[in-house]
Amino acid sequence: MSAEVSVTVGDLARALDARGWGELDLKVTGAAEPAATSPVGPNGGVIALAMAPKYAESLQPGSIAILADGMEPQAYGLRAAIFAPRPRLLMAGLTRAFDPGPEIAPGIHPSAVIDPSAEIGEAAAIGPFVVIGAKVRIGRNARIGAHVSIGRGTVIGDDALIHPGARIAHGVTIGLRIIVQSGAVIGGDGFSFVTPEESGIEEIRRTLGARDAIKEQHWTRIHSLGGVEIGDDVEIGANATIDRGTIRATRIGSGTKVDNLVMVAHNVVVGEDCLLCSQVGIAGSSKIGNRVVLAGKVGVSDNIEVGDDVIAGGASKIFTRVPAGRVVLGNPAVKMETQLEIQKAMRRLPRFAQQLAKLQETVTRLLEKG
Amino acid sequence: MSAEVSVTVGDLARALDARGWGELDLKVTGAAEPAATSPVGPNGGVIALAMAPKYAESLQPGSIAILADGMEPQAYGLRAAIFAPRPRLLMAGLTRAFDPGPEIAPGIHPSAVIDPSAEIGEAAAIGPFVVIGAKVRIGRNARIGAHVSIGRGTVIGDDALIHPGARIAHGVTIGLRIIVQSGAVIGGDGFSFVTPEESGIEEIRRTLGARDAIKEQHWTRIHSLGGVEIGDDVEIGANATIDRGTIRATRIGSGTKVDNLVMVAHNVVVGEDCLLCSQVGIAGSSKIGNRVVLAGKVGVSDNIEVGDDVIAGGASKIFTRVPAGRVVLGNPAVKMETQLEIQKAMRRLPRFAQQLAKLQETVTRLLEKG
Amino acid sequence: MSAEVSVTVGDLARALDARGWGELDLKVTGAAEPAATSPVGPNGGVIALAMAPKYAESLQPGSIAILADGMEPQAYGLRAAIFAPRPRLLMAGLTRAFDPGPEIAPGIHPSAVIDPSAEIGEAAAIGPFVVIGAKVRIGRNARIGAHVSIGRGTVIGDDALIHPGARIAHGVTIGLRIIVQSGAVIGGDGFSFVTPEESGIEEIRRTLGARDAIKEQHWTRIHSLGGVEIGDDVEIGANATIDRGTIRATRIGSGTKVDNLVMVAHNVVVGEDCLLCSQVGIAGSSKIGNRVVLAGKVGVSDNIEVGDDVIAGGASKIFTRVPAGRVVLGNPAVKMETQLEIQKAMRRLPRFAQQLAKLQETVTRLLEKG
Repeated sequence: MSAEVSVTVGDLARALDARGWGELDLKVTGAAEPAATSPVGPNGGVIALAMAPKYAESLQPGSIAILADGMEPQAYGLRAAIFAPRPRLLMAGLTRAFDPGPEIAPGIHPSAVIDPSAEIGEAAAIGPFVVIGAKVRIGRNARIGAHVSIGRGTVIGDDALIHPGARIAHGVTIGLRIIVQSGAVIGGDGFSFVTPEESGIEEIRRTLGARDAIKEQHWTRIHSLGGVEIGDDVEIGANATIDRGTIRATRIGSGTKVDNLVMVAHNVVVGEDCLLCSQVGIAGSSKIGNRVVLAGKVGVSDNIEVGDDVIAGGASKIFTRVPAGRVVLGNPAVKMETQLEIQKAMRRLPRFAQQLAKLQETVTRLLEKG
Repeated sequence: MSAEVSVTVGDLARALDARGWGELDLKVTGAAEPAATSPVGPNGGVIALAMAPKYAESLQPGSIAILADGMEPQAYGLRAAIFAPRPRLLMAGLTRAFDPGPEIAPGIHPSAVIDPSAEIGEAAAIGPFVVIGAKVRIGRNARIGAHVSIGRGTVIGDDALIHPGARIAHGVTIGLRIIVQSGAVIGGDGFSFVTPEESGIEEIRRTLGARDAIKEQHWTRIHSLGGVEIGDDVEIGANATIDRGTIRATRIGSGTKVDNLVMVAHNVVVGEDCLLCSQVGIAGSSKIGNRVVLAGKVGVSDNIEVGDDVIAGGASKIFTRVPAGRVVLGNPAVKMETQLEIQKAMRRLPRFAQQLAKLQETVTRLLEKG
Repeated sequence: MSAEVSVTVGDLARALDARGWGELDLKVTGAAEPAATSPVGPNGGVIALAMAPKYAESLQPGSIAILADGMEPQAYGLRAAIFAPRPRLLMAGLTRAFDPGPEIAPGIHPSAVIDPSAEIGEAAAIGPFVVIGAKVRIGRNARIGAHVSIGRGTVIGDDALIHPGARIAHGVTIGLRIIVQSGAVIGGDGFSFVTPEESGIEEIRRTLGARDAIKEQHWTRIHSLGGVEIGDDVEIGANATIDRGTIRATRIGSGTKVDNLVMVAHNVVVGEDCLLCSQVGIAGSSKIGNRVVLAGKVGVSDNIEVGDDVIAGGASKIFTRVPAGRVVLGNPAVKMETQLEIQKAMRRLPRFAQQLAKLQETVTRLLEKG
């Protein structure tokens, strides 16, 4: 990691609300893994992340490190240290301190095409080739990277950071401090089609799989008139897609973080402070509660309700309602402890088959004897 | 939903081929959910979607609604109503009537870079920073959003709608009325590589999993000379990818709809009127019939044939040929009814294990007694 | 396939290091499937790919074909032929010979916005609306398509081919001959968040699913200071995303090929000569060995190690360490042969249930008799 900022160990400790030790006026220029550090020079040095003894073993004498409570800076020959009571939390403050962020020059690049009816807040940084539509409103301190497009009437709150090439369609409303990674598409049309007569999908949902005579039909498009509403402090990952609603808006609650390549379909409502990890897909009109965590590749069927505080393990497929607070796993997703039992039994399944066959033989012999 | 159009109830009913009731000259300005409506004002009002009694309960007296056949407009104090014999189908017409669509100003934006040898049809709307290559031909009434790129020699039929930031490579042929959502990539190179000697993948396909000595080899690229051929009335979702073929074209049949983040690999042939839902992946050279529905996250292995009218449930993984008309589910996908039986048995599996163990004990005791 | 190049059969055979037969001075203008060929005309003709007798049946007399060793060109009335000892390998050379590649005009398009401190190598072709940041260094012969953005300080080696609309963020280092397909995002921020106190995810990892009182907490962002380091001869697919590391770089080794819509998360290390097929997802900090093949839709949990030469079958979900050389399949992934046994047993599971019930009855009767 190379940074363009530098602070003293003492200032950094104060910023992190953590305890400093040693030469607190040494300059810190960035963070690194223990093996990548060297003794502090006249212009300072990087701070090593050594929050457990096994990491601290690679520390260079004369360097600066973050240690867990109880570790001894003298044992590693450090010149200064910061103690982390909750290491992952300290990482948040530390990395924020040294993140130079993407390069978007202050002001509006002359190549940007901004509709005269759009309102751009103070201190905006808008990159080359950005296109902003009619009646768009963007708050203060917006940083908008190259090639971003924002459609008619969309409203974005203060302190937005929109990375190059993100797409925000018309009629989208976004709160404060949004971060949109490159290639994300917010407000694409919902995937909603209908046939003149009952379709095969409607039929098998009614019959649980049985089909009558198959009809040849074409799909007619249901347009998406609803927009997308996103709360405060939301992050949308690279190449993720959040579709617009049919009549009302698709919604993402405040504090929710959406990873790369996630799909949130039309009319979905996601609550607050959720984590939707990479490649999650939520089908149309499903409702996700608050503080829900869906691990990578989790799928949620359409029109399903997932309660508050649910955690779904990696690649779980949710086909039915999940009550609040439940931890689920598997395809189809069931309680995690049930799934782990099922998996154990599955691994023993080939052996079961042998045991059952043998038992049948034995019983047959018993019957013959009897 | 906010619209910029308005029609009378009577005109809307006629456009929807549905029966109107009440004050047919009231103005409709948009559609909304029942709870979001208010009594019609002097400039008209929104029409509520209340196609079942449970939705109609939230209707405001004095408003306008769409009702299912047999529901009583007087019971809800409505001033006008439209009756929907097949509600989802009516939604198609209704939402089309009120969709203002994306904002792409008529004419060709002066910033667009269009090769002089390209032919653009009449009445085209081409947005800022669009790049169109040599010998491209685009039909009439095309609407092409900002930052779209279209490669050399690609041909696109009349009435195309291409949203901002979509990528269409060279040598692609597309029929009438295509809709391409933002970020879709049509005509990327196929993922096709070969090693000098037999690779591990080829070996385990031949041996069903057994491996001889492992060889260290590099991958050599097979280039993609085929293009992509897409029929009429197709829609390609946001950030979906349709790769070009190796020697012949990858093909998507007329009337097929492709959702966000779908992958269609090189040489794949998809038939007509299919639905490929979000995050579906179809591997190289597979062949999908007509009217096939692949639900979200379905995977199809390479070189597989999936027959006409097949429906695959959410997250199914198809490793072998599926005959026409079959409804499949699961990983690996089997007939849906078989899969539901397997799932039921799996949930009872831990109990089976106990029962089997107990039975073994009993039989052992019987044997000892005998 | 239509090509804009033409070579003689003899030259092509030499270029492919293969044996030619017949009229070696005939001109080859492209490649095609046997059914799409016609007799060679005065300006030459396409070469048919007929590497097995079943394909050769559709050959037109008077045409040119690639045959497998041992096939008889006279039997098909060919005027010339090339013999392929390993057909897939020959495809690599053949398709390379006829690939005209994307259209990027030589030189730097006047609309491109290139920071004065950036260094662009000789013979670069840079398309319209490209944005290149401060201190970027790009090697010789770079071909960079329209709308590409490259962030501050990124270094890209010689002979790069970057397709339209790809996104390369700041602080990325890339080796020689990289190919980046459209819409790929290299260097987006990692998905890394922390709560002030232990989160539900941390809790269930510790307790294997059990939860104490649920706390309402917000997520704090851990910034991504590490970049991305990519070796030589790597290809990144359309709309794939490679996130930057937290402190050190995310790494992709030389010779590795990444397909469309793949997710490589922060801090992941992928070895050399791997194939990551479409829609693969690798979660944070996992380590993938050399020559690993992950088939379509494979998922790898975070902090997992996957050894050299591992092959994971389609849609496998890897939750635990996989030793070198193993072939795995399933969710959760186990040895392929074990998985195939489990699947066989699963299909027989409903029958087992019946057999077990029947056996229980029999034994009960035996007991009663006894």
